[in-house]
Amino acid sequence: MLRVLRTRPGSVVRLFDGAGREGDFLVLETGKSKAVLEASTLREHPAGSGEVWLALGWGKSSRRGYLLEKSVELHAAGIAFWQAEFSQGRLPKAPKESWHDRCVQAAKQCGSLFLPALEMVQGGCEGLAEYGRKFDRMILAWENESDQLLSPDFFGKGKTLVVIGPEGGIAEREASLLIDRGFTAMSLGGSILRWETAALHCLSLSFFARESSKR
Amino acid sequence: MLRVLRTRPGSVVRLFDGAGREGDFLVLETGKSKAVLEASTLREHPAGSGEVWLALGWGKSSRRGYLLEKSVELHAAGIAFWQAEFSQGRLPKAPKESWHDRCVQAAKQCGSLFLPALEMVQGGCEGLAEYGRKFDRMILAWENESDQLLSPDFFGKGKTLVVIGPEGGIAEREASLLIDRGFTAMSLGGSILRWETAALHCLSLSFFARESSKR
Repeated sequence: MLRVLRTRPGSVVRLFDGAGREGDFLVLETGKSKAVLEASTLREHPAGSGEVWLALGWGKSSRRGYLLEKSVELHAAGIAFWQAEFSQGRLPKAPKESWHDRCVQAAKQCGSLFLPALEMVQGGCEGLAEYGRKFDRMILAWENESDQLLSPDFFGKGKTLVVIGPEGGIAEREASLLIDRGFTAMSLGGSILRWETAALHCLSLSFFARESSKR
Repeated sequence: MLRVLRTRPGSVVRLFDGAGREGDFLVLETGKSKAVLEASTLREHPAGSGEVWLALGWGKSSRRGYLLEKSVELHAAGIAFWQAEFSQGRLPKAPKESWHDRCVQAAKQCGSLFLPALEMVQGGCEGLAEYGRKFDRMILAWENESDQLLSPDFFGKGKTLVVIGPEGGIAEREASLLIDRGFTAMSLGGSILRWETAALHCLSLSFFARESSKR
């Protein structure tokens, strides 16, 4: 704000915290890397009931940024990456700064006041099973047509985690482990969806469920 | 097949027609631009009940190809482009060859035997209203939260056309005209979705509805 936009005292800026709060602020003083602001209006927006988190198998996908953008537009509460057997490349230790920037950019465009939390789940599939314990509902979403179809009805109140395999798919061993540990396997339907399409489809169904619950 | 893959007599190739039929064929003879094939197996897949078509406001979007790919994965029956008031650039007279290629490529990847029809609707919004007459159900999908929420239940049997504005949004005059002509205005929910996200969301809901009706 100070360097790129060269904001000076006397300006009014609108800020948001990515967790539902926004406000207009009068800039009182500016320094090299600090500014003193005075809040003129503050608004708080409730997050609504029901959170969806996606646990995405890590990969070298060029479409990761694209998916992060969509997760903002479709109000995902969080995106977690995990290292799957068929993952290409190694899961970074921490989310990259550029991912956060992409989310902020998308939030500005779509007028959302919420940013998805970005997390890295270490420890492979075992780590993911453990990570799932903090959710109210854990779903493994895949093509398997013999499983029940994933529907908007499954995104109720509380926190739902939806696991999507990496681009190469989820290994049988991994699927079994997750199911043993309480994840419900559900089908995305009769099309072999790409990694990001599977993720988008889940976001879309959960977005619909949330919007529907508000009415 | 003959030039790039250099298929020669004696090979067996699998072909699909984009309308649900596929088969294995023995190559008997090959020429410069012709081949004689003998069908060994032929399979026909029913399209299932309910077709969704998207009528997308034309624009210079770099994400058009991406959306075409998703329309194959999520089994759209057709994509029509129309010239809206806020369209950037001029609607081409005919679909480009490269769009078809992109769809074929996506169909091979996702194992779909259906390709969406690609159409250009001339005559602006008036032309679109006329075009809508061949559908069983016409929906105008936008952000307007006072309208009923677009839900999978609206994608029933028969042919449904969903209109999405161009990147700049749909003009009030255009929305009124469509509503006057029998289109039902429906809300996508409380997020300002980008052009391709709005389209994807509609495809996702209709894909779910179709998959759900098969069970």
